[in-house]
Amino acid sequence: MTTYLLEKALVGEQVLDDVLVTVDAGRFVEAGPDARDRAIRLPGLSIPGLANCHSHAFHRALRGHTQLGRAGEPPGTFWTWREQMYAVARRLTPDSYYALARATYREMLAAGITCVGEFHYLHHQPDGTPYADPNAMGNALIAAAKDAGIRIALLDTCYLAAGIGRAPEGVQVRYSDGDATRWAGRVDALKGDDTTVIGAAVHSVRAVPKDQITTVAEWAQGDGQSGKPLHVHLSEQVAENEQCLAAHGRTPTELLDEAGALGPMTSAVHATHLTDHDLALLGSAGTHACFCPTTERDLGDGIGPSRALADHGARLTLGSDSHAVIDPFEEMRAVELDERLATQRRGHWSAIDLLGAATHDGHASLGFPDAGRIAVGQRADLVTLDLTSPRTAGTGAGPETVVFAAVAEDVRSVMVDGVLHETAALRPEIGHELRAATEGVR
Amino acid sequence: MTTYLLEKALVGEQVLDDVLVTVDAGRFVEAGPDARDRAIRLPGLSIPGLANCHSHAFHRALRGHTQLGRAGEPPGTFWTWREQMYAVARRLTPDSYYALARATYREMLAAGITCVGEFHYLHHQPDGTPYADPNAMGNALIAAAKDAGIRIALLDTCYLAAGIGRAPEGVQVRYSDGDATRWAGRVDALKGDDTTVIGAAVHSVRAVPKDQITTVAEWAQGDGQSGKPLHVHLSEQVAENEQCLAAHGRTPTELLDEAGALGPMTSAVHATHLTDHDLALLGSAGTHACFCPTTERDLGDGIGPSRALADHGARLTLGSDSHAVIDPFEEMRAVELDERLATQRRGHWSAIDLLGAATHDGHASLGFPDAGRIAVGQRADLVTLDLTSPRTAGTGAGPETVVFAAVAEDVRSVMVDGVLHETAALRPEIGHELRAATEGVR
Repeated sequence: MTTYLLEKALVGEQVLDDVLVTVDAGRFVEAGPDARDRAIRLPGLSIPGLANCHSHAFHRALRGHTQLGRAGEPPGTFWTWREQMYAVARRLTPDSYYALARATYREMLAAGITCVGEFHYLHHQPDGTPYADPNAMGNALIAAAKDAGIRIALLDTCYLAAGIGRAPEGVQVRYSDGDATRWAGRVDALKGDDTTVIGAAVHSVRAVPKDQITTVAEWAQGDGQSGKPLHVHLSEQVAENEQCLAAHGRTPTELLDEAGALGPMTSAVHATHLTDHDLALLGSAGTHACFCPTTERDLGDGIGPSRALADHGARLTLGSDSHAVIDPFEEMRAVELDERLATQRRGHWSAIDLLGAATHDGHASLGFPDAGRIAVGQRADLVTLDLTSPRTAGTGAGPETVVFAAVAEDVRSVMVDGVLHETAALRPEIGHELRAATEGVR
Repeated sequence: MTTYLLEKALVGEQVLDDVLVTVDAGRFVEAGPDARDRAIRLPGLSIPGLANCHSHAFHRALRGHTQLGRAGEPPGTFWTWREQMYAVARRLTPDSYYALARATYREMLAAGITCVGEFHYLHHQPDGTPYADPNAMGNALIAAAKDAGIRIALLDTCYLAAGIGRAPEGVQVRYSDGDATRWAGRVDALKGDDTTVIGAAVHSVRAVPKDQITTVAEWAQGDGQSGKPLHVHLSEQVAENEQCLAAHGRTPTELLDEAGALGPMTSAVHATHLTDHDLALLGSAGTHACFCPTTERDLGDGIGPSRALADHGARLTLGSDSHAVIDPFEEMRAVELDERLATQRRGHWSAIDLLGAATHDGHASLGFPDAGRIAVGQRADLVTLDLTSPRTAGTGAGPETVVFAAVAEDVRSVMVDGVLHETAALRPEIGHELRAATEGVR
């Protein structure tokens, strides 16, 4: 049992002074009568652990390499970006992916992220043959998260087609299990534990036929008691909507609904280009809408209807997706700021609601309903922010400071399941690891 | 004479290894034959000094205090934000403004900013009476920049009206000189020096009648040889356009053009909501277009036509304006990323062109044409970035790393006019100063 005295802490929706928390076996427990005397002081503002609900770990190797450097170079479209992304995907092995993912997850840890949702589709050898352990890649990611010190929801992804009615092409043979039944057979062999959730993902309505989506959704729902997370890329690009309408006469959201894939454990990732009917379907099903604003800016996806989704009943979560940026504070504020750009009005999202998306709602969407709040019984996660940096000084110490002033560098320490990490000491090591790991795959 | 060996440096449009620069009396000079032996090594990537072309220093006191904290609070519009901003403006004295500006300029310094364009309109005592020194406030800002260690272009702002045809209201009496002739008389008493440019600003077409704009523009043009900087808020909000059209039958840009205020030393700040005719006028006059993306996001201004402005001949510059964020790297990338959100395409601005906006074009727009390049004869400014941080590691060391991966915290050292500042040692002091200075005026 260890007790901490938090100078300031976000408890529920309030920032309180001098909050005493006692940690035992990775959980917050009731403090004993003399706990204050033994308490370790954590200066700054402590908030719950942050959930990064959408990650493609290997995209970290692309940061700084897929932009337009000089006028006259090819300007870079979504598709030229995808070509470079596929080139890295071709090269990865279980060992190099472990190293890259561990470094990337450590970057997340130092940014205050205590749990990652890894949308994982790079399953097989370069020619499509399964590895001796058919889950060698997935297990590499689980080991990377464990060794980095964060929790993981491995969202094992069913990816069967290059597009609607098109067989996998090129590197995509690494992604495909052939059909969703074989996908499920492989995934059944993955083992979760206290810090690992095995969940499911449908890559998109482009990459998985409707009947196969149903198979994945049924796997995720299991016996119907609680169900596992089921994530899916949804309407990130206008082209996806057009292709789906042409092939099926319905929007991607409508197709997912008919396939039985919408529900409270579903996360619709991006959800950028939606109709009113889509909004109603996602909202009434109580799905999570996982926005990835820094990636959506980077890829030029557009600005999704975050406020309208929430007003219809969907619950916002956040992800860093391509890792062009790993900064959960930037993701939080970007939801509000991009909505301001779209509407020319302020005040759509409150700081406290954006914090809810990044903490307890995010964790719940990844199958960790017992994380994301500073409360007895919850997992002992704490992200402690420096209130004296050039960015945060003088901004007060409310939820607005966290969401609208702080950056990843302001994270002074991170506790995950009771284990405390001091970030200043970690960062140089993390930079070294990232450099070595990206050079290994580029 | 001091010589530095830069591990990597942006020289022209190229990043070169092992660049030797010799500094004498604040300028880059030719290196002597044995300079390398005496050189001080600067690890990382060195780029030219960054110009922050639009600043309202006192807005720093608002950071973290004008957002929507909790659902149910007043959501905050541009106008409620302005109310809070005016409340701070009411309280400032030359002493408290000096302290706040110095802390804010030091935050800029640590972020790589070597020169600020201060759009300054808070001239008089709370009841509108001039101070004993009528330039007490402007001189406080000049002293603040000097003591912080950065250059300043004091863009002394003519602000005469609450709106078209409306006398100054409330705190605005502190802003008004009565008319532009009296404005010019006061400004003539301000003294520039090697690190201080005295320039002009027209607050906006709302705040200065057309004939008075002409007076300010003529003051700025002087004898017609080179001229002084002339900055103006332009079409930040749709409402300004509507009011100007209603009163004058022309757009704000057209009005400025007719008033003789557009030219190569003019900076049109924001330039968000423009017609095709406006684009042609601003482009053919060779004006600077000063974008302030983090503020434009914060205030919900919308996304201005940066690419179209440049294609018409205007030159982009950048400013942090309200200091919701002070991070010139975020401003650079936001121009491209917001254009992607508006168009759903990538590749409008190259990293090297965004660096040009933030360095030499920015400095030129502030009246420092001898800054913003690493070249013999230029002012000896260097911003040296850490390439080993969790953000920059593995991203290469090209212009894309600077623009798309780095943040203010990655600035390891800053040289201004030959004086080198190590940022890691400065930051705790800066935080302390910011806290004291903001508490003094809130």
